[in-house]
Amino acid sequence: MNEPVAPGRVGDVRRRNLSLVLDSIARTPDAKPSRAQLSAATGLTKAAVSSLVADLVESGLVSEVGLYRDGERGRPGVGLELSTRRGVVGMEINVDYLSAGLLDLGGTLRIHRTLESGNRGQSPESVMSLLAGLVSDVAAEASAAGIMLLGGGLAVPGLVDSAAGTVATAPNLHWHGVALQLDRLLPDAPFGTVLHNEANCAALAELWYGHGLDFRDYLFISGEVGVGGGLVIGSELFAGPRGQAGEVGHMVVEPSGPDCSCGGHGCLESFAGQEAIFAEAGIAPGAASERLARLGEHLASGDPAALTAVARAGHYVGIAAASTARLMNLSAVVLGGHFTQMGPWIAPAVVESLADYAPGVVSPARVAVSELGQSAALLGAAGIALRSVLASPFSLTTSG
Amino acid sequence: MNEPVAPGRVGDVRRRNLSLVLDSIARTPDAKPSRAQLSAATGLTKAAVSSLVADLVESGLVSEVGLYRDGERGRPGVGLELSTRRGVVGMEINVDYLSAGLLDLGGTLRIHRTLESGNRGQSPESVMSLLAGLVSDVAAEASAAGIMLLGGGLAVPGLVDSAAGTVATAPNLHWHGVALQLDRLLPDAPFGTVLHNEANCAALAELWYGHGLDFRDYLFISGEVGVGGGLVIGSELFAGPRGQAGEVGHMVVEPSGPDCSCGGHGCLESFAGQEAIFAEAGIAPGAASERLARLGEHLASGDPAALTAVARAGHYVGIAAASTARLMNLSAVVLGGHFTQMGPWIAPAVVESLADYAPGVVSPARVAVSELGQSAALLGAAGIALRSVLASPFSLTTSG
Repeated sequence: MNEPVAPGRVGDVRRRNLSLVLDSIARTPDAKPSRAQLSAATGLTKAAVSSLVADLVESGLVSEVGLYRDGERGRPGVGLELSTRRGVVGMEINVDYLSAGLLDLGGTLRIHRTLESGNRGQSPESVMSLLAGLVSDVAAEASAAGIMLLGGGLAVPGLVDSAAGTVATAPNLHWHGVALQLDRLLPDAPFGTVLHNEANCAALAELWYGHGLDFRDYLFISGEVGVGGGLVIGSELFAGPRGQAGEVGHMVVEPSGPDCSCGGHGCLESFAGQEAIFAEAGIAPGAASERLARLGEHLASGDPAALTAVARAGHYVGIAAASTARLMNLSAVVLGGHFTQMGPWIAPAVVESLADYAPGVVSPARVAVSELGQSAALLGAAGIALRSVLASPFSLTTSG
Repeated sequence: MNEPVAPGRVGDVRRRNLSLVLDSIARTPDAKPSRAQLSAATGLTKAAVSSLVADLVESGLVSEVGLYRDGERGRPGVGLELSTRRGVVGMEINVDYLSAGLLDLGGTLRIHRTLESGNRGQSPESVMSLLAGLVSDVAAEASAAGIMLLGGGLAVPGLVDSAAGTVATAPNLHWHGVALQLDRLLPDAPFGTVLHNEANCAALAELWYGHGLDFRDYLFISGEVGVGGGLVIGSELFAGPRGQAGEVGHMVVEPSGPDCSCGGHGCLESFAGQEAIFAEAGIAPGAASERLARLGEHLASGDPAALTAVARAGHYVGIAAASTARLMNLSAVVLGGHFTQMGPWIAPAVVESLADYAPGVVSPARVAVSELGQSAALLGAAGIALRSVLASPFSLTTSG
């Protein structure tokens, strides 16, 4: 029902209705609805929908597609979809690589570039310079393809304050209390760049593009140099009272365990982080991607040290998952990050450990391995930016 | 702003406004606002407030109190408060006692009766008969005091389905898949009796009447025969996707620990539940209340076995709290149930363990001991019932 509109509120109502129409188009990406269908779906008059769609098309957010037969009446119509000529950029700073990728408004990852880079202990300025270069390459490619960039999201493996654009602490980068110059990354994009926690981004990517389509409530555990996580409750990320929930890597899984970089000891990270697994598996030092590849070979060839290392990691991941499932009433677990590559070996160990420590709580069918791989955090950061654009289309339209 | 009211919505608006006025009275229990003050606070006209208050007074939910000088203008007015002649009943079934208490609408616990009763392994029917007897005693006392009962809440130490009135599992009672005959308890109360999880009730009591007034986000850990818990986020109970969050007693704190009644092992309950503490402290078998009293004496006299047992429990409570604080971004811990009686001995051990396993996450000043004692669960169950009544006053008024 549309309520009576008092004078002076017309602008607000038009903004709300722009969002309503855009949301209707976004929710049904395969339907490519006509103006008449949008009118039926939103309860707005056809005249209002036509005017709103004109704005959305003019702003470039929405495109008209082909001729379209409008159901039983047989009148030809024009379908509408989110424009593939507008996009957002997902970016990631991790310990040993940088990456940037372009997601078009339709949700397709069109460009994805990764740069190997040892960022641990490097100054935020120098890392941001490298990233700005990579992003500018992506922007040039986008421009050549006729795609305009509207905004971006940057994922960093640490506790961040998104509103302030600061990293409180990213232990594996050795960054503490750092303000990042986000303006450098996409200087011309109207929505700018917003900073996020990497594991939360990966959890959201999983929610929007991965197993979130199957599960509504789950713990996402992502193996990286550290072990990050994200909690999804009712298909929404649970960020905690200060936005820093999901630190599953620092749950205590072995009270007598080794000291951890966080100052505690016996943390999950000490058993399931990359260093711990590589050391236990006897993988010689080197670049993380090479070591991961070598671990994969050793696992495939049945090397006992590799199998033991990954089984041990899975055992402790299962303990953390058991405690989390009990505490938060969750019934599914999704393994991401480097656990993806170890999937066939680590998932059974997690299942066994869950059966051992929390029988009947998480069924084996609800222990899943992410299929998004290393692009998860980038995809999540881009997805957040995409949703910001769709939530505020009026800032790009002339009448909003 | 009051929006224009379409025909047919008058009933809805009156219901909303009844709640609005009642809520204004409930929020300022000490202010005893006049009708004029309620008009100012709600934005409703004085005529509307007078009509709504008349309904609330007639229904018995609100009482007029004394003569009241209305601020600077010096006109005498009548103050309004929630009636102390209406009340709700909080009830608790625990392993070794039953209890029932009357909370008046003003939030004062007027009657509190406890019956020692070994309920473990007893049939739900026989336990409910005993409880019904106790509740009927409370109802008779209430009636003699001129207090009408409107509804009740029953706390049970297990996983429950409140809507269905069933206990999925209460391991320490040996109840599994049990439907309780809640209708027997308060047959004449218009709001009936609703079933709740005991630890959640205790956490809510803490929120409404205890440390929740200081902390907005905390883990409540309650020692009983088992160890229960509740998670409070933003001053609200986090119940989890299926209402069963807070099972902190079954978080894994020692992977090589003993088997637990839940089928897992190394659970917190195995170290901080009553049996574990009594056994470690060398307290001979007997009624729980007597054993707790004896433990208190041993602690006060510096008995090494008692001190070690409680320090060990605190150590493991600290580990579970450290993991929870990391996972959910919480920064305070409240100890309740039998931990209350052990407060001076267990709290330092929890503080030390938190500093050891999650340094800087929960400051010592934010580890608190509940002051509600054994009435917490009952108080929480009653508080839920009280809030139900205040949320739906129209069901008791003639014009609603």
